[in-house]
Amino acid sequence: MSTVTLSRKFEFSSSHRYWRADWSDDQNAATFGLCALPNGHGHNYTLEVSVSGQPDPDTGMVINLVDLKDAVDSVLTEFDHKHLNLDTSYFDADIPTTENFAVVLWRLISSAIIATGSKSKTCNLRRLRLYETSDLYVEYTGEFE
Amino acid sequence: MSTVTLSRKFEFSSSHRYWRADWSDDQNAATFGLCALPNGHGHNYTLEVSVSGQPDPDTGMVINLVDLKDAVDSVLTEFDHKHLNLDTSYFDADIPTTENFAVVLWRLISSAIIATGSKSKTCNLRRLRLYETSDLYVEYTGEFE
Amino acid sequence: MSTVTLSRKFEFSSSHRYWRADWSDDQNAATFGLCALPNGHGHNYTLEVSVSGQPDPDTGMVINLVDLKDAVDSVLTEFDHKHLNLDTSYFDADIPTTENFAVVLWRLISSAIIATGSKSKTCNLRRLRLYETSDLYVEYTGEFE
Amino acid sequence: MSTVTLSRKFEFSSSHRYWRADWSDDQNAATFGLCALPNGHGHNYTLEVSVSGQPDPDTGMVINLVDLKDAVDSVLTEFDHKHLNLDTSYFDADIPTTENFAVVLWRLISSAIIATGSKSKTCNLRRLRLYETSDLYVEYTGEFE
Amino acid sequence: MSTVTLSRKFEFSSSHRYWRADWSDDQNAATFGLCALPNGHGHNYTLEVSVSGQPDPDTGMVINLVDLKDAVDSVLTEFDHKHLNLDTSYFDADIPTTENFAVVLWRLISSAIIATGSKSKTCNLRRLRLYETSDLYVEYTGEFE
Amino acid sequence: MSTVTLSRKFEFSSSHRYWRADWSDDQNAATFGLCALPNGHGHNYTLEVSVSGQPDPDTGMVINLVDLKDAVDSVLTEFDHKHLNLDTSYFDADIPTTENFAVVLWRLISSAIIATGSKSKTCNLRRLRLYETSDLYVEYTGEFE
Repeated sequence: MSTVTLSRKFEFSSSHRYWRADWSDDQNAATFGLCALPNGHGHNYTLEVSVSGQPDPDTGMVINLVDLKDAVDSVLTEFDHKHLNLDTSYFDADIPTTENFAVVLWRLISSAIIATGSKSKTCNLRRLRLYETSDLYVEYTGEFE
Repeated sequence: MSTVTLSRKFEFSSSHRYWRADWSDDQNAATFGLCALPNGHGHNYTLEVSVSGQPDPDTGMVINLVDLKDAVDSVLTEFDHKHLNLDTSYFDADIPTTENFAVVLWRLISSAIIATGSKSKTCNLRRLRLYETSDLYVEYTGEFE
Repeated sequence: MSTVTLSRKFEFSSSHRYWRADWSDDQNAATFGLCALPNGHGHNYTLEVSVSGQPDPDTGMVINLVDLKDAVDSVLTEFDHKHLNLDTSYFDADIPTTENFAVVLWRLISSAIIATGSKSKTCNLRRLRLYETSDLYVEYTGEFE
Repeated sequence: MSTVTLSRKFEFSSSHRYWRADWSDDQNAATFGLCALPNGHGHNYTLEVSVSGQPDPDTGMVINLVDLKDAVDSVLTEFDHKHLNLDTSYFDADIPTTENFAVVLWRLISSAIIATGSKSKTCNLRRLRLYETSDLYVEYTGEFE
Repeated sequence: MSTVTLSRKFEFSSSHRYWRADWSDDQNAATFGLCALPNGHGHNYTLEVSVSGQPDPDTGMVINLVDLKDAVDSVLTEFDHKHLNLDTSYFDADIPTTENFAVVLWRLISSAIIATGSKSKTCNLRRLRLYETSDLYVEYTGEFE
Repeated sequence: MSTVTLSRKFEFSSSHRYWRADWSDDQNAATFGLCALPNGHGHNYTLEVSVSGQPDPDTGMVINLVDLKDAVDSVLTEFDHKHLNLDTSYFDADIPTTENFAVVLWRLISSAIIATGSKSKTCNLRRLRLYETSDLYVEYTGEFE
């Protein structure tokens, strides 16, 4: 049996601010530049979700695309058209950089995919790529030490 | 002499909110959907600026690209990494839709290009395309009645 | 009042065949090449729909994007995941080239947009771009003689 | 000696249908949705072929691009402008999903590259990415258990 | 009869240098910046060729794509993998800016298309877009005064 | 602690020639085709630089993007708007293929990133992707035997 990886891109929009309350304004500006401005700014994020496994012999699918979409949408609805610092609870302690955001999304999406019924037996989350712009993205594969 | 049009893309990030204070929350939600949420959301905007004119016989240029970049950057710095409703004064009366935003940018950029020294005699702003996402954009050519 | 043009891209998939019953197989092959093969082949089409008008003073919109999507989707559902020659009635007499397909879509979509309630008073269909691939597209603006 | 990976994209168009003769129409529709419609539908596929090896010291190449193109084109000609179910023999038992299609292409292209004379001694097929749309692709690296 | 516009993209690579022999090195550097460096530099150009006309009633085509490709390739072969200043005669008096290059290509390609047999009676060159990068392009529609 | 990979794209333009002085003109032409022409030709290269490490707990960053840009720009300035064979010393013995070019860039950029102060403790160069065109690229991860 062959193991293949299927990837699907999703888009959503959020705004965020890079700022630490325990730092001076000067230190925030020196470290985060324009990203430290008080009212935040925003991005069209693109998230590429990759799952891998052996295609189901009956359907030829690693996962049914309708179910993959439902699983990912159930996570992204928490972030779409929201302010990451003000409207979600994931960045109370951590700056909502693309790096930290990708790790948060991994945890939520890997659970949502496990809960999906239509996937092949061996299917699991393999890789996330979170694009802040078309020229800047973060990749996370669940590595943890 | 030939008249040609030169187009250059620029990128910036802003957040915004669609919301009218003189409307009820329900009317705002029904009209603007997720865009009416209180803390705003954001976008990576791409702005395509098109100028047309006859190439200068000495340099072969409609406008020197360094000067075009300076002119447009001097305008975009007012909007990049800003909240359009809270950090600028252009949307006190108008909703910061992509339509209205394009008209504001036309007024500012056409002035900035007129002020540029290095352009050919016949050069002027011809068209703006403002992309909110890669699949949605507004085009404005200065038409006014 | 400013007149602006708003464009939105839509994607769908169809298959088609270029073949005239009143021509010999040789003439079909010489004219249409691989496109004349019996079982047809397919494309991911991208359709860019452009409407223009004066933004509504209250909402700042030429047309509400939700309604634009509904109008266009109501047309594309006739073609998505279909065989243009076998599953639709628009190409009984005409070859389903991208040129002819764009003219068919103009007629259907301009009616669907007229029927939409949420658009500004001056809004109407301005331009269609139908991409057969990312490198090949047809543009139609309703010109008719 | 350094080992590098060279990737080249190729485009072709095919149509297909997802349907199992041993299933009821209802079961086919519930599982495959629009993809189960009788006349099939189509896609512009993009195939990214990656080969890796040590660049030949004389030419600096892992493989001559002309030969890579010939090898891949010799395979894709079996599928371009064809109906995968009706015009090829690879999907008699299996559904022509992107997952299954990628595994078929791996087998054919790895052989075609081995047969190429101009490649460096260490060159071999490293990865295939088959894009059904720009937002959906399957990756296969020959993993088999 | 409807008039439609068909556009096709072509790619080629050339190098060039911006430099006037009748100017001092300082004046060249001040005007042309890095583009004045002695050994030239290069670009992957993308040329979008747009022809418009009424689709031929028999074939549904404005122009046969095979013939369009032949016509454009016969022109681009003069420029592909060449140095515009050293290997062609079009820029002896003029700087090979994208503006001037587009005007040269218009003259050559409009003739090549007129010479093509398979086009519809009303077909002619409508627009050229020459991309120096994906973010910078020049548009020419044959305007001349 | 999670290990994430951050990737950023950079663009530059260079020209080059594929030609061995110890080979006959015929052998050069047979091997390198149009790339062997005397005056060289050029490309818009895109370089994707990927660094990986554990995000700094204070800033949430693997590396400050301003410093990453400075590090990579300090390397690319040697190649931008230059002729790789004539204006740099890296290709005296080797052909400036994309393969060889990627290995040269790895050596220079990995040093430049080590010298950057603002990166997280575990950050280092993980992967380079050098695109000669959007359809052709080379990937190098420092593998050496």
